[in-house]
Amino acid sequence: MILPKTAEPKPTPKGQASNAEVYRAAARLMVQKGYGGTSISDIAQVVGMTKAGLYHHIAGKQDLLFQILQHAHDEMERLVIEPAKQVGDPERRLIEITRRHVRGILDGGLEFTLLYRERHHLDDAQQETIALRTRAYLALVGATLQELAMEGKLRDLDIQIGTIHLLKTISGIADWYPMFSEIDEDHLVEQTVNFGLSAILKR
Amino acid sequence: MILPKTAEPKPTPKGQASNAEVYRAAARLMVQKGYGGTSISDIAQVVGMTKAGLYHHIAGKQDLLFQILQHAHDEMERLVIEPAKQVGDPERRLIEITRRHVRGILDGGLEFTLLYRERHHLDDAQQETIALRTRAYLALVGATLQELAMEGKLRDLDIQIGTIHLLKTISGIADWYPMFSEIDEDHLVEQTVNFGLSAILKR
Repeated sequence: MILPKTAEPKPTPKGQASNAEVYRAAARLMVQKGYGGTSISDIAQVVGMTKAGLYHHIAGKQDLLFQILQHAHDEMERLVIEPAKQVGDPERRLIEITRRHVRGILDGGLEFTLLYRERHHLDDAQQETIALRTRAYLALVGATLQELAMEGKLRDLDIQIGTIHLLKTISGIADWYPMFSEIDEDHLVEQTVNFGLSAILKR
Repeated sequence: MILPKTAEPKPTPKGQASNAEVYRAAARLMVQKGYGGTSISDIAQVVGMTKAGLYHHIAGKQDLLFQILQHAHDEMERLVIEPAKQVGDPERRLIEITRRHVRGILDGGLEFTLLYRERHHLDDAQQETIALRTRAYLALVGATLQELAMEGKLRDLDIQIGTIHLLKTISGIADWYPMFSEIDEDHLVEQTVNFGLSAILKR
């Protein structure tokens, strides 16, 4: 059964879960058991739908993975990219990107960040769609570093490597924070801003 | 069949692969297909052994994963930790740790770095063994940052968070470098030293 890519799992009337909650629960399961080790039955159970009900909204496991990753990028755009683009000053913009990205991971983006690694299970066209969105984010951060270079604020830094190192420092939080959850979230956000900005800016 | 944990797959006489090469090939396969998606038959085929031959050296897939991660930590000790411990000055030591860790990933540690994520498939005692070795490495880096703080060289930085961010920046290379392999390795090593040290040290 092939459905349009815009099809989304609906919340169960009983559970009244939002689509975002359905995606998050499915993502969490796929992270725990691995994409290969997760069945559609497992997913249906954890999101509180029948298998038939779930198939009414998705074409299959691969389609669900694609929808989840699209949703994660939609959230990144809404919570990180669009607000950051409103900030004219590149230094303030870089702080805003870092702060909002870390906050997004802590506020429920953790599973999506970890699931991103399973994107190789998508078909070529789906992988290309996700890769384009990832490159757009890298380009925003890279352009911000370029502006900082023109303002004479950048360290002697390879912009491409600096961009990726900053984003890996941020996304790495999804790996380790669950084991160090005693660390205060606000403190982690500000420490990550300090770490990343010190690595990048002359200061 | 339960064998002592010290049992190691031997190279096939024909292939003359070293144990390290056998571990690396098995690790690469487990990373590609996921631990759950990899069978002992798959592993035997890729390391050039019969399934029975492989079972002669390992108790099973979980035991092999444990042996591979132990081997990866042995390599970390040999290539990063022991040489770094010889360096008295903490700033030089931190540079040495960073440089040697990145070099270790690029020189064949990439699969081991990525496979580390599958450690939750180990039994509790095995997980604890690996966790202890990881904590020992974190403690070495943390103690180095502590020495730098006492020398007045550390930024206003949470040592625990700074330590983890540095190590995630380094290990993150295993995720992205295969997609950016046009970047010169020596350049990547030095840029990573600069990025990490600038994030941590007043300079």
